[in-house]
Amino acid sequence: MPVTRAIAFDAFTTFDPGSVATRAEEVFPGRGAELAGAWRTRQFEYAWLRTLMGRYADFWQVTDEALVFTAALLKLELTADRRERLMQAFLELKAWPDARSALSALKRAGVSLAFLSNLTARMLDAAVKNSGLDGLFEPHLTTDLVRAYKPDPRAYQMGVDAFGVPREQIVFAAFGGWDAAGARAFGYRTFWVNRAGAPVERLSEAPDAIGTTLTDLVGFVSGV
Amino acid sequence: MPVTRAIAFDAFTTFDPGSVATRAEEVFPGRGAELAGAWRTRQFEYAWLRTLMGRYADFWQVTDEALVFTAALLKLELTADRRERLMQAFLELKAWPDARSALSALKRAGVSLAFLSNLTARMLDAAVKNSGLDGLFEPHLTTDLVRAYKPDPRAYQMGVDAFGVPREQIVFAAFGGWDAAGARAFGYRTFWVNRAGAPVERLSEAPDAIGTTLTDLVGFVSGV
Repeated sequence: MPVTRAIAFDAFTTFDPGSVATRAEEVFPGRGAELAGAWRTRQFEYAWLRTLMGRYADFWQVTDEALVFTAALLKLELTADRRERLMQAFLELKAWPDARSALSALKRAGVSLAFLSNLTARMLDAAVKNSGLDGLFEPHLTTDLVRAYKPDPRAYQMGVDAFGVPREQIVFAAFGGWDAAGARAFGYRTFWVNRAGAPVERLSEAPDAIGTTLTDLVGFVSGV
Repeated sequence: MPVTRAIAFDAFTTFDPGSVATRAEEVFPGRGAELAGAWRTRQFEYAWLRTLMGRYADFWQVTDEALVFTAALLKLELTADRRERLMQAFLELKAWPDARSALSALKRAGVSLAFLSNLTARMLDAAVKNSGLDGLFEPHLTTDLVRAYKPDPRAYQMGVDAFGVPREQIVFAAFGGWDAAGARAFGYRTFWVNRAGAPVERLSEAPDAIGTTLTDLVGFVSGV
């Protein structure tokens, strides 16, 4: 196996989005899971659709617009206060329990680490800070820099350009199965951190390996 | 208002996808709505993702792959026979009740009509034939011809190229709110046949007009 000199991470490999669903349940008791699921679906669909349409807007805006649509669809009364509290959840993300030790081990081994994410730099900064992960990551490769969301190849290309090492020495760590497929199509060795135990997406490309935590990723790049 | 010399239709403005949900309920009693909803979501997401990834496959394949994934996700046992029966529903689509009289009126008024659709020519041919709508439409503008799904501008461009009239004399009739946004971003006058009464998508572009049937579309192009 080629040596791994850099790893590009989707944000949710490291940060647990579950707090968004928890917030949704606090704001709309009894409807939280339904709202969080439909919101998340629309959030990503809007990102993909805007990229296809040539109408890029950053992920904070897309997230807010997806929320407004979803609340209307589900006939939930989205007051200004509720909207604010729900959006705020995306500035309060915290790391999964396995993240710190796995990321620290990779960093100590001399591997360059960076987020390659649809999230804005502000959203990523907040999550890093809330989780006490400062100092581990290179500057964020947010899709804002190229105004195209994953799985557009322009987004994945940021990793090659930023790390300055050959593509085959970079591993992409995906949270979504669709992102694993996109990264593999781009040409990255791809590790799917399949935390939800979801089936492999039927999207032409399969990940090189699958685990459930970042600890499993450490095993993959160590060849263990 | 500019004269309308041609109308490009999304397939589901004319054909009712409800029969797919009915079939899903026959095949998986008590789980039909859940399967049909999740299948439809993945079906369109796969089309968008494959276009972004540069991995086009036709809508028949995408539909089948979305079904296989969705059944695995929902832990439904998809035997070969069940898979065949569910897919077959996409070759048995029938027109909405208002379609024939509205389309005939437009045709008599000298307006050129064509489907501009993600569906394959085979799927569109079957639906036209099942519905007795032969003779009303110009050759299908399926995304297979350009290997890019809506809302990619390459897909909408087919209408301009095929009708041979200025873009402002073409109306795009959308079924999905996202498709209305995409067509409007491309530059078509856009009528949203919002049969489900859904909220407007928050996707940067709003349709020029909204109705609930093709009869309403006749009113729009007549300036009534």
